[in-house]
Amino acid sequence: MNNFIFQNPVKVIFGRGTIGALAEHIPAGAKVLMTCGGGSIRANGVYGQVKEALSGFDLQEFWGIEPNPRYETAMKAVELCRREKITFLLSVGGGSVLDATKFISLAVHYTAADPWELYTKGALSPQTVPLGAVITLPATGSEMNCNSVLSRESTAEKLAFSNPQAYPLFSVMDPESTFTLPERQTINGIVDAFVHVCEQYMTYPVNSPLQDRQAEAVYHTLVEEGPKVLKNPRDYDARANIMWAATHALNFIMACGVPEDWSTHMIGHEITALHGLDHAQTLACVLFGVWKHQKQAKEAKLVQYGQRIWGITPGPGAVEKAIDRTEAFFRSLGMKTRLHEYGVGTENFEKIASRIESRGMKLGEHANIGKKEILEILNLSL
Amino acid sequence: MNNFIFQNPVKVIFGRGTIGALAEHIPAGAKVLMTCGGGSIRANGVYGQVKEALSGFDLQEFWGIEPNPRYETAMKAVELCRREKITFLLSVGGGSVLDATKFISLAVHYTAADPWELYTKGALSPQTVPLGAVITLPATGSEMNCNSVLSRESTAEKLAFSNPQAYPLFSVMDPESTFTLPERQTINGIVDAFVHVCEQYMTYPVNSPLQDRQAEAVYHTLVEEGPKVLKNPRDYDARANIMWAATHALNFIMACGVPEDWSTHMIGHEITALHGLDHAQTLACVLFGVWKHQKQAKEAKLVQYGQRIWGITPGPGAVEKAIDRTEAFFRSLGMKTRLHEYGVGTENFEKIASRIESRGMKLGEHANIGKKEILEILNLSL
Repeated sequence: MNNFIFQNPVKVIFGRGTIGALAEHIPAGAKVLMTCGGGSIRANGVYGQVKEALSGFDLQEFWGIEPNPRYETAMKAVELCRREKITFLLSVGGGSVLDATKFISLAVHYTAADPWELYTKGALSPQTVPLGAVITLPATGSEMNCNSVLSRESTAEKLAFSNPQAYPLFSVMDPESTFTLPERQTINGIVDAFVHVCEQYMTYPVNSPLQDRQAEAVYHTLVEEGPKVLKNPRDYDARANIMWAATHALNFIMACGVPEDWSTHMIGHEITALHGLDHAQTLACVLFGVWKHQKQAKEAKLVQYGQRIWGITPGPGAVEKAIDRTEAFFRSLGMKTRLHEYGVGTENFEKIASRIESRGMKLGEHANIGKKEILEILNLSL
Repeated sequence: MNNFIFQNPVKVIFGRGTIGALAEHIPAGAKVLMTCGGGSIRANGVYGQVKEALSGFDLQEFWGIEPNPRYETAMKAVELCRREKITFLLSVGGGSVLDATKFISLAVHYTAADPWELYTKGALSPQTVPLGAVITLPATGSEMNCNSVLSRESTAEKLAFSNPQAYPLFSVMDPESTFTLPERQTINGIVDAFVHVCEQYMTYPVNSPLQDRQAEAVYHTLVEEGPKVLKNPRDYDARANIMWAATHALNFIMACGVPEDWSTHMIGHEITALHGLDHAQTLACVLFGVWKHQKQAKEAKLVQYGQRIWGITPGPGAVEKAIDRTEAFFRSLGMKTRLHEYGVGTENFEKIASRIESRGMKLGEHANIGKKEILEILNLSL
């Protein structure tokens, strides 16, 4: 395996009824801003639980953080924090709310320049507003990492950072809060988590048997438990297993000492930025374009994956079977896996490839996927 | 799965040549005490690497922390720290050195009473001396947890604490430093790590498929890579895989939301305290006594384990085969698995069982192993 440094200080508070004990994790006397999305937390009861748990705090609320959260929206919260001298941020919702709140946490004191530099330059903030989370959607893994993805409407950009200042101090995860998720979000979450594992696993072997099996542990859990939550949305154990698996899919334990890909995400982000597809929908299409295009480079891992997850015997055709079996799994969940099914044609392919090229980076674990290859992958994803 | 809280803030710095960059992880101007064992770090070159890396620091050394480290020895280092106003502790060695150094870190400012209370009362310290580690023996997992086990000679006690103040700030792990380990320590380390997984896995099902497979990932790695390091002690990849697996065997990720046992360790500690066996030697005997005694209570997990790790078909005799196959694996490594092979007879069984009983605790995941059952387990381990 390769050398690595790993640290993940997030405190995870997991299980039934854990939202009620929220107050003990927030500094006494904090001036709290609760950041929220579009209202699903009112429907599922989480809002009421949080309000009750924080009745002893000076609490304000910021509503309206959208899926694929926007810089423009988050900046309104930044201004509110500056004006009201907020000392603690509590993100209540899914990964979009949390990603935006990570940005807010770092941007409040980033006053010397446009805080969008946190994404464009990977800048550090001179000071952060401490941050905790109540996560209600298993998908992004944002609850146990320091990543954030934000979209800027004015430039139609969708950019990511990974910043050690952005770890939540804690993440409260109550699987019961996911009982009432719309089916589409449940499906998106399973696919998102699955593709996170792929980005860290489906590269080339570096003799890392432990990390490989840690990744396969998440694959197996998503494959086994995913259909259960779709069949019975109130199956606590299945919801809990999906929720913890989604966290592990992107807390980077499985990435220790192994190469990573992330080309599916980079291309997918551009499709969301230009076409508005859900994040997971883009992944569900682009993943197979990347795998088909890179099947020789990824052969050894695709064969191992096919054998261990799907019982496919190694040998001729094993790679294709592994790809097909995965696509069939996504489709069995109700997820479309071709761009044309979402109304996306070739109209922006040139633009997508050019934009990624213009950032001066080549994609993939071998950093050899440039404009030409991105166009080929997009066509394979149609 | 059960509710849980998980946090593990240790920074792991893993791989070839990482000791050389040690200085960047220690606060500038720190007055450092390096704590060491009996001299193996001179033989394997680690001592020289640490000295060179820390040439810019005010550095003192404390030698002589023994395997099964003693309170009496550690207290000498505590007095040195108090006298010399040490501001940073660097443990260089295996888990014994680190366990003692965790105690030192907490005991320096624990002046109101005997710091042995850190073990007997699970006390917190009013202030700790920050602690980092260079770990040279994959076994205990101490490098990524907050546990410490210490023996007190005057009372022939061996006690453990788990104290959130005791996480190392960082642990540097260079697999090359394990190339020259004596074979006995390599074997001990593999068995110790293996039994750590057993204590967290071999209980009863709570619908935790992810955690089960995370545990099995460590089992598989130890089973596959263990024989490789014994055959070729300088196999970097195998050493690295064993080292990272041993860390995961006791960083408690796999314990999230599942019941734990620990009866093998509790009984084993008493055998070491009274007979001086290596820690892993006691585990290698008592584990099978516990499994045989508890095979009905542990049946479902023993069957799953047998099938997934050893390919044993579920059905009549599967439990016994899983136990036998595990014992055969230990013996294939060169580890004896019966107490009589170490010269231990029944002479202290009554005392061992009485001592555990006198602490007012029953053992096992069902807390139903009392004096009578401990005696039965000991006889099954003969």
